[in-house]
Amino acid sequence: MPKKHFNTPRTNTTFNGLLFYGRHPITAAINNPKRQITKILCTPENEAEVRKLCQNAKRNESIISVTERKEIDKLLPSDSVHQGFAAYVKELENYALEDIIRLADSLEDCHVLILDQVTDPQNIGAIIRSSVAFNTLALILQDKNSPNESGAMAKASAGMIEHLPICRVTNLARAIEQLKAVGFWTIGMDGYATTTIDQLKKGGKSAIIMGSEGKGMRRLIEESCDITVRLPISEKVESLNVATAAAIALYEINKK
Amino acid sequence: MPKKHFNTPRTNTTFNGLLFYGRHPITAAINNPKRQITKILCTPENEAEVRKLCQNAKRNESIISVTERKEIDKLLPSDSVHQGFAAYVKELENYALEDIIRLADSLEDCHVLILDQVTDPQNIGAIIRSSVAFNTLALILQDKNSPNESGAMAKASAGMIEHLPICRVTNLARAIEQLKAVGFWTIGMDGYATTTIDQLKKGGKSAIIMGSEGKGMRRLIEESCDITVRLPISEKVESLNVATAAAIALYEINKK
Repeated sequence: MPKKHFNTPRTNTTFNGLLFYGRHPITAAINNPKRQITKILCTPENEAEVRKLCQNAKRNESIISVTERKEIDKLLPSDSVHQGFAAYVKELENYALEDIIRLADSLEDCHVLILDQVTDPQNIGAIIRSSVAFNTLALILQDKNSPNESGAMAKASAGMIEHLPICRVTNLARAIEQLKAVGFWTIGMDGYATTTIDQLKKGGKSAIIMGSEGKGMRRLIEESCDITVRLPISEKVESLNVATAAAIALYEINKK
Repeated sequence: MPKKHFNTPRTNTTFNGLLFYGRHPITAAINNPKRQITKILCTPENEAEVRKLCQNAKRNESIISVTERKEIDKLLPSDSVHQGFAAYVKELENYALEDIIRLADSLEDCHVLILDQVTDPQNIGAIIRSSVAFNTLALILQDKNSPNESGAMAKASAGMIEHLPICRVTNLARAIEQLKAVGFWTIGMDGYATTTIDQLKKGGKSAIIMGSEGKGMRRLIEESCDITVRLPISEKVESLNVATAAAIALYEINKK
């Protein structure tokens, strides 16, 4: 998987903020009132579309800058598919775990996803897209080991990064304990587990915990789970891609 | 998603064949007796591992060429994660639809996956990995509109391209009719369908048909399906990535 480009400072930090790109991410960013946008770049053929989006979202049109495609190309890694849309944006505010617990408070059935040591922005973006698709309440990441918001992440999420509360915590094991204390059932994904995920009882509050593709969860994290489950995959396959595994787990947990 | 690189002639065709790269693809290629390999490149630290693989697979060690990392770098697009492993290989032989039908003949429960207009080698590679994970009998593609085997596809499949019969047909609609004639239930994936995939009766022979992310199946293909079903996703999300959707569909259809 091509990864190198996605941590280049060019895409992540300029004095203007993060550089998002692509039709879906830019459309979703414009439509998210919580997203601060300092500048929108679009090619001439996309201008009408962007103006309309700004009008509907009551955004000041003065932030729009009509720009030639090759100028947008220059701002991004060479293989970024920007489709003539880019924007300088500010990172969304982090949710505290208490916020997530409050969101869950009034709900009878809900689930959150916790990622331990998943570091690839593209995988996290893809996981965000699946999380929104399957009504995940929030994504919980460890502050230290997970990448910040980025253009590549927003692109891989197809703009769904605007729709998912993301909570970065210092201590993942402690976050798991806090969730347990308010009634979450904590389910670790582990290829060696004996139970398969479809055997779980449906309903209630649950937290799915996943580790990285190669190494899985850290032992301390795994030990704090109420149960570990696996996806029923063929022995020919060592593991699934972490974003694929997350999508299937969320699909299953979202079933009533 | 970065795509540009993956169709460059450099990675796909040289007089030596296709250039595969990465530990999993090279390991799986060596272990597949049907895969012709003309040359294996590995960095000095990987030599012992590669020799052992060749010995176990009864491959002639004279095809191994110990090569500096930067020389392998030069052969591949700049963002290819080759991990010090590469190999020139020949494409696997195409399966005919009749071969697939014969494979299915003695089986009571089985499923195949048919892709209509899915063109991105990375998505197809990821789909191959999920197909093997969920015991898919074969992948059926349209000859004209789908990419050939490539290093990028093999990498995205994590080497699972060695384990999945792939059948390229000229006429997809006719292939669907032929599968129906031998008892396959043909199930089209369509975001607008009223039935969700988990409502299907389990068992028997089935063919899952999926179109491209944006456009879905072509109408003619959709009309030839026995039923169309959708994945139950939130209205906030327009669609899932095609490889993610395929993984979930295969996971569900593989349940007993």
